[in-house]
Amino acid sequence: MGTAAGQKFQVVAGGSVTTPKGFQAGGLHCGLKKTERYDLGVIVCEVPAAAAAVYTLNAFQAAPLGVTRESVAASGGRLHAMLVNSGNANACTGKQGEADAYEMRSAMAAALGLPEHYVGVTSTGVIGEPLPMERVRKGIAELPARVHAEGGGDFCQAILTTDLVKKEVCVKVSVGGKDVYIAGAAKGSGMIHPNMATMLGFITTDALVEPADLQGLLSGVTDSTFNMITVDGDTSTNDMVVVMASGLASAERLAPGHPDWDAYKEGFQHVAEYLAKAIARDGEGATKLVEVQVNGAVSQNAARAIAKTVIGSSLVKSAVFGADANWGRIIAAVGRAGQPVNVDTVDIYLGDIAVLVQSRPVRFDEDRAAAYLQGDTVVFRVELNMEDGNATAWGCDLTYDYVRINAAYRT
Amino acid sequence: MGTAAGQKFQVVAGGSVTTPKGFQAGGLHCGLKKTERYDLGVIVCEVPAAAAAVYTLNAFQAAPLGVTRESVAASGGRLHAMLVNSGNANACTGKQGEADAYEMRSAMAAALGLPEHYVGVTSTGVIGEPLPMERVRKGIAELPARVHAEGGGDFCQAILTTDLVKKEVCVKVSVGGKDVYIAGAAKGSGMIHPNMATMLGFITTDALVEPADLQGLLSGVTDSTFNMITVDGDTSTNDMVVVMASGLASAERLAPGHPDWDAYKEGFQHVAEYLAKAIARDGEGATKLVEVQVNGAVSQNAARAIAKTVIGSSLVKSAVFGADANWGRIIAAVGRAGQPVNVDTVDIYLGDIAVLVQSRPVRFDEDRAAAYLQGDTVVFRVELNMEDGNATAWGCDLTYDYVRINAAYRT
Repeated sequence: MGTAAGQKFQVVAGGSVTTPKGFQAGGLHCGLKKTERYDLGVIVCEVPAAAAAVYTLNAFQAAPLGVTRESVAASGGRLHAMLVNSGNANACTGKQGEADAYEMRSAMAAALGLPEHYVGVTSTGVIGEPLPMERVRKGIAELPARVHAEGGGDFCQAILTTDLVKKEVCVKVSVGGKDVYIAGAAKGSGMIHPNMATMLGFITTDALVEPADLQGLLSGVTDSTFNMITVDGDTSTNDMVVVMASGLASAERLAPGHPDWDAYKEGFQHVAEYLAKAIARDGEGATKLVEVQVNGAVSQNAARAIAKTVIGSSLVKSAVFGADANWGRIIAAVGRAGQPVNVDTVDIYLGDIAVLVQSRPVRFDEDRAAAYLQGDTVVFRVELNMEDGNATAWGCDLTYDYVRINAAYRT
Repeated sequence: MGTAAGQKFQVVAGGSVTTPKGFQAGGLHCGLKKTERYDLGVIVCEVPAAAAAVYTLNAFQAAPLGVTRESVAASGGRLHAMLVNSGNANACTGKQGEADAYEMRSAMAAALGLPEHYVGVTSTGVIGEPLPMERVRKGIAELPARVHAEGGGDFCQAILTTDLVKKEVCVKVSVGGKDVYIAGAAKGSGMIHPNMATMLGFITTDALVEPADLQGLLSGVTDSTFNMITVDGDTSTNDMVVVMASGLASAERLAPGHPDWDAYKEGFQHVAEYLAKAIARDGEGATKLVEVQVNGAVSQNAARAIAKTVIGSSLVKSAVFGADANWGRIIAAVGRAGQPVNVDTVDIYLGDIAVLVQSRPVRFDEDRAAAYLQGDTVVFRVELNMEDGNATAWGCDLTYDYVRINAAYRT
């Protein structure tokens, strides 16, 4: 465990979604992916956990999202189990797709001995192909036997598609003197763009917290984490983040106003931000994480829009791949974000290297800049020097491998 | 010359910006490009031509745009000459950049014996580097000797940066029984995105038309041509389209309401659309032109937004490069455009191959689809089946070469 100065949470090394009390998980290969990798997984809570979720803003939402939304509503904000498959998105699959998503829910509920409305379902993978339900049914029937207290890593495997690495994180917060855990797992590598479009995220916690407070927390944190990453500007039909709170930490009930709410929120923010950055760094074909900080905008929304425009620029992304300190592409992106800027007061930094001051190019050490851009994390800082709107966005470089992966994903 | 059925104009094979009466042009290499290619050019009209222009919406507009805008305003909508350099954008170059742009104007005016306010200036190339004015001055002094009646092709060379091919076109329209010509030249290959961000375009015509009518025509046509192309979503600081009308065709004065205005407008539209498509096809690294037609949207603006979102999708563009009939990425892009869609009534066609009908996947011949996608022009048609808003956008595929070109443009 490590604690940075002033940090109200501790990172739990090796933690996963099964670290918070009350959660088990598992995964297996049922045949949706061509290779033998896991493609079906579930998180199960001992009790009906307080639940909250955010969903893609894409007009075409995949069938499982409607099923999960219905479960959360019907159960008054509770989920007992969250089922996921990868390899097939069950999106644009019509009435059959809806029926399949409902059947996945009822089969999982039956296998676990739970009421249907305590089960959520989500899918990720290719759009528009019917689910091979024969394999899915068989997999769901076998899944309960694969669920165990150390199964967080297996679950994390089961949600990946073109991802190269598992993305999981766990933190510990003290609530009224008791340890409370927050953990998360995520997938996402392509079709990644702000507005909950990004990915699948699963957060578990053993805090005692009401569904409405959990929803408020998740929505707020999502705006500054998951919604601030982009790989390619493409918003998916399927993606969502769901959080389940077991309340089994034996700690006090948490709500806004509790003396430890801020610490809990900080830990939650860390989990979400860690996963968001891990997704950006693992962007399809990416060789590095790119962070864009925008300060001094006229509002937070303006700062967010500018940061997202810069992080989404194919020209900026290509320049990072080429370790080219091409700040002209950054300022061009700032200028086309549709937000107020003072064209005479912009400063731009690559790491701590000033390249533009008061909108004027300054002489800088090109070799040092190139060396900085070759690192595995690149931070661009844009100081607008107007008001106090700040935001940070994350993305990755645009590489030959992005093209290779996406020129032949389906075939 | 060829005439399609019902077409009110004729394409003039081999025509260029010097085909309309009254125009001469020229180009030379003054040393802004590293290789010996032309990097300085000018179009000169015998008389002060009626002029109109549209400019980038980027907040950071390069110095020459302000100079051109000032000339057009000071001369009451007239330009005698239009100077251009490539290889250096003179953008984000501060007070010195402004002074350099004004000096280019005064030097060109002096060399041609014209008042300053009859000269426009534009630049394209790297952002943020000071112009090597020594070379520019020398080039401008030599330029008048290089101007001639067949110089359209030389001019067209001088405006290119990463472009692989020259982009020029000429049409002929009958106005009151007299031949009137409209011709255009354009550059643009990267940093190409809707909203006059796209490129440099130069249109000449010998029609007799008032500046205000010319501006109305240009603005309207730009919205459905130059503003409907995208290569990478990046809006440049420099780009503009300028039109000069000499009035020397000895034809009647044209204005809205003239019996031949529609024919003239149709010819003008063809010139703009031809150049826009040529830019998209020559997008950095592109192997083909992609056209996205959106019909049946709730409004023309909605159709335009959806068409631009689809054409701008890195995933759609990669799939086209891979000849992968991945319509899931198209519908995902339609769904994230932020426009009303009926999720149950969408049809999608690749060429004439239906792949989605009433939002349901239909069986199609994958081999035929792959063969179609390997052609040099790919048309996606999205039928929303709601109201009568229609639009067409153009772009290109996303390839390894796009990344290669942009990872090392500046260095």
